Amino acid sequence: MQKNERPIVAITLGDPASIGPEITLKALNHKEIYDKCKPLVVGDALALGRAKEILNLKDLQINSISCADEGLFVHGVIDVLHMNLLEGVDYELGRVSKIAGDASYQYVVKAIQIAMDKEVDATVTNAINKEAINLAGHKFNGHTEIYAQQTNTSKYTMMLCHENLRVVHVSTHVSLREACDLVKQKRVLEVIELANKACMDIGIKNPKIGVAGLNPHSGENGLFGREEIEEITPAIEEAKAKGLNVEGPVPPDTVFSKARGGWYDIVVAMYHDQGHIPLKVVGFVYDPKEQKWTSVAGVNITLGLPIIRTSVDHGTAFDQAGKGSANELSLLNAIEYAINFAQQK
Amino acid sequence: MQKNERPIVAITLGDPASIGPEITLKALNHKEIYDKCKPLVVGDALALGRAKEILNLKDLQINSISCADEGLFVHGVIDVLHMNLLEGVDYELGRVSKIAGDASYQYVVKAIQIAMDKEVDATVTNAINKEAINLAGHKFNGHTEIYAQQTNTSKYTMMLCHENLRVVHVSTHVSLREACDLVKQKRVLEVIELANKACMDIGIKNPKIGVAGLNPHSGENGLFGREEIEEITPAIEEAKAKGLNVEGPVPPDTVFSKARGGWYDIVVAMYHDQGHIPLKVVGFVYDPKEQKWTSVAGVNITLGLPIIRTSVDHGTAFDQAGKGSANELSLLNAIEYAINFAQQK
Repeated sequence: MQKNERPIVAITLGDPASIGPEITLKALNHKEIYDKCKPLVVGDALALGRAKEILNLKDLQINSISCADEGLFVHGVIDVLHMNLLEGVDYELGRVSKIAGDASYQYVVKAIQIAMDKEVDATVTNAINKEAINLAGHKFNGHTEIYAQQTNTSKYTMMLCHENLRVVHVSTHVSLREACDLVKQKRVLEVIELANKACMDIGIKNPKIGVAGLNPHSGENGLFGREEIEEITPAIEEAKAKGLNVEGPVPPDTVFSKARGGWYDIVVAMYHDQGHIPLKVVGFVYDPKEQKWTSVAGVNITLGLPIIRTSVDHGTAFDQAGKGSANELSLLNAIEYAINFAQQK
Repeated sequence: MQKNERPIVAITLGDPASIGPEITLKALNHKEIYDKCKPLVVGDALALGRAKEILNLKDLQINSISCADEGLFVHGVIDVLHMNLLEGVDYELGRVSKIAGDASYQYVVKAIQIAMDKEVDATVTNAINKEAINLAGHKFNGHTEIYAQQTNTSKYTMMLCHENLRVVHVSTHVSLREACDLVKQKRVLEVIELANKACMDIGIKNPKIGVAGLNPHSGENGLFGREEIEEITPAIEEAKAKGLNVEGPVPPDTVFSKARGGWYDIVVAMYHDQGHIPLKVVGFVYDPKEQKWTSVAGVNITLGLPIIRTSVDHGTAFDQAGKGSANELSLLNAIEYAINFAQQK
């Protein structure tokens, strides 16, 4: 990418039976996206065509292409790297299926490949369904593991962002008991360093990092829990010795308010829900009358990869697929974060 | 208390060296408080006098009395059940001390006693300092344990509230590992029942209760963690069989957004930080320039007691004592919750 040029951002369609195609068209209908990047959908023209009808976007053109170079990248035209996996297939919107699961997996693999080949500057993923990809024989927990495998990455972590609140996790999809076991000095230091790099990669100089404790009140000097004393504080000291701007362990129930207030650029969370709860409380808005999420702001980013990957931080929402009502905010946020990372590269 | 009469609310002063006296005067300077209740400070006139000078509230009168009957309960006059524990004592603002710690403990014991004797309708507590009360020989972790002992209560729990978000906890001040061990069917059911009663006690008919899981994604059908299957779901089924309106286990990272959106009246959290993080992210606002909390909204309530107890949900903030800058919002919220409970009795 030349300086001042718009980065090419590959956006995977997600599970074609999900809200992915609809929110992709909705997001790319925002004209300002094209001022900042060249979006390239990786998926099937057919799925986009169905979404176009659902959303009644008559004037929108869908431009099937076979490589990024062929993209027009103008508002009103959706450039899609057409993989032709759904032709003649009768997949049902809102249903888990092997065929849609396989397609969603192939889109991801393709996006990773063109990013590794530097045909695109960043990747953004829509949601896939774990059951569907497993039905299709792809044994992964989710995107992160696919990216790690395909790019041969061993040190990585999940970052969640909403506005100025950024959180990285020491562990994610393990039981809470196992998460306690995984709070080890080496891993905590590794995640502090990933957090530091992530902030610098989006242009934050000398980022201030808040490291949460594991136990309530950070254990109150060992009164309830010793991980702060034995693992977390030594990791913080090590990071400080390396010149990083780190504080902690900060009591888990105040560190996120301080970060929201601007005291920290990023928070190192000790387990999945410690980081996910504050992000989703702030970013997700639920309407009990409509029984749906009216806002699902927030971005999920994989750190430690050789390529850029940001993602929506919600699921496939099969119950909303085909209704045209799903909210594109999280996808927009994810595209914006991807642009930000690409511009700093 | 007669119907339509204002309830008498005892407010303990907290540690006299803390922000307690200042925020008490600030809170009682809100005229509308006197329209809704008869506030009675339990503490020392001397500490209130110091706070009055700090805040430069020249017109405010301090009325030392020896029982609730003598209260004037009009705006502009602070009725204080004067315990005379600080006369001739040179305690320093912002410092942990045995003398202030002992006084703060005695105020709490007195407030409990007059509530048990039905001289007052509810109690509201300012913050005490654990180190200070322990220095004075009172071996308690905090208010909750003092209330439980003094009222001979064994089944109780902590509820936190901010606006329409209410959370009760299966455990509080234990390590995260011990918190996992404490997720037992019997205790979860007990807390569901306490949550249900608390909602009814503030006038919510047939409250809708959301029970959080313990593990990320509620364990994904046992994939990471089995407490949902073995302990939480059986407790929910038992509660349903008793006619309660309960749902769960709900993934911990979405249950609070749903509750904020009005889907649940109250959430049963499995451990301290699961409930405290969302409450404080929403209620606490930090100003990094001033390096202080500009808003600390939220109320801490002990459920299961024979008397009403609500509390501020922040600490003694010794670093702010004497500056006149501490925020009274959490105390106002606590007084309002106490009034609400008292009116439904």
